[in-house]
Amino acid sequence: MAQNIYDDPAFFGGYSELPRSVHGLDAAPEWPALRALLPALAGKRVVDLGCGFGWFCRYAAAEGAREVLGLDVSENMLARAKAQTSQASVGYRRADLETLDLPAAAFDLAYASLALHYVADLGRLLATVQRALVPGGRFVFSIEHPIFMASRQAGWIAHAGGRAWPVDSYFREGPRTTTWFTDGVVKQHRTIGTTLTLLMRHGFTIAHVEEWRPSDAQIAAQVALAEELDRPMFLIVAADR
Amino acid sequence: MAQNIYDDPAFFGGYSELPRSVHGLDAAPEWPALRALLPALAGKRVVDLGCGFGWFCRYAAAEGAREVLGLDVSENMLARAKAQTSQASVGYRRADLETLDLPAAAFDLAYASLALHYVADLGRLLATVQRALVPGGRFVFSIEHPIFMASRQAGWIAHAGGRAWPVDSYFREGPRTTTWFTDGVVKQHRTIGTTLTLLMRHGFTIAHVEEWRPSDAQIAAQVALAEELDRPMFLIVAADR
Repeated sequence: MAQNIYDDPAFFGGYSELPRSVHGLDAAPEWPALRALLPALAGKRVVDLGCGFGWFCRYAAAEGAREVLGLDVSENMLARAKAQTSQASVGYRRADLETLDLPAAAFDLAYASLALHYVADLGRLLATVQRALVPGGRFVFSIEHPIFMASRQAGWIAHAGGRAWPVDSYFREGPRTTTWFTDGVVKQHRTIGTTLTLLMRHGFTIAHVEEWRPSDAQIAAQVALAEELDRPMFLIVAADR
Repeated sequence: MAQNIYDDPAFFGGYSELPRSVHGLDAAPEWPALRALLPALAGKRVVDLGCGFGWFCRYAAAEGAREVLGLDVSENMLARAKAQTSQASVGYRRADLETLDLPAAAFDLAYASLALHYVADLGRLLATVQRALVPGGRFVFSIEHPIFMASRQAGWIAHAGGRAWPVDSYFREGPRTTTWFTDGVVKQHRTIGTTLTLLMRHGFTIAHVEEWRPSDAQIAAQVALAEELDRPMFLIVAADR
């Protein structure tokens, strides 16, 4: 089973305090970029891989999605998601993305926000998602950018020329163990080439590749975001079956 | 007109000494990755954007290409290319990739090795190449990887955790002035997202995205290549019309 760091009390406590956990999608600066890649949701069947507190599931339902399935490995997160959701079109299920099974041709949209970089066997999951989408269906996801994640010592470094984000070990794919609210958070590093190649190999057509950057308005409203002009933090992809 | 650094005597002298300049394609470690993306060349019409000394043009002709057009802005390089080429199917023409014009549906394959990162108006060039390809035609190219090029102070830096490649200014697209054989070599930095988006916007389907890394055998034969496991140096793309 995949690591379930979200049910670690220290992690869950810290994660629950994040603006995006408290305030939802509009508190995630990359959300407008993801939203722009969504099809019109009215009448659609949607699966959210790694749904967390269910913010996207509720959004999809509010936009008129016919059926929304939120999947997560964390019991804590699912409990809160269910408690916060009143729409009858939304259902939640506990699932491990490493072993997920989904019915064939059952969804028009698959969505995964910052979840896939926890998955070791991405190829298996992509095959599952591809089969679960109808022809013409879309998969929209964000991951931590591989450049953000690659280094064995990720963190800004000062040097003679100023401040830089370090890149090393880029082609040494596999686990990266970091501290984020707690020690021992394991993410899976893959190059951009590997992720895009896996998508194509599993029958997806690349529709959009975006390295998220904050807009000028976002930086004006939240000055700390300016450092995200120096390094790519998120990779956002839309791929069509 | 685009910068023509290749006709700067100091640059041309240094560049002429590179293994790939002296020994051709097999001395370029990324060549096998590019070759793997080529269609069967027999009977095909090929255009090489930034053909340099003509190594790829001669290769394509030897593989049976019906017609090969090599384009370069450098008079020095074209003169040597012509002198080294005896195949009647190969022709060379001086051209600036910033203002290039090509006939419509005239080529089955467009190829550009480490040339596009000198081009400021990539969108214009992609529109030209798309129009010049037949339906089903392919564009194969390599560029310096945007992560290799982004920093204002590109160069390995030592820090407490070891050695890292610096990333800064990633989203500040535009010219990067570096020293490579001579001062003032201007390259154009674009993010991966921008390059792939421009391709799709101009009617290409992404067929392959590869961040080149040396193979174990290449590292065994040339130990200096080991550092290329730490950073992505080249981006290799195949896109189909």
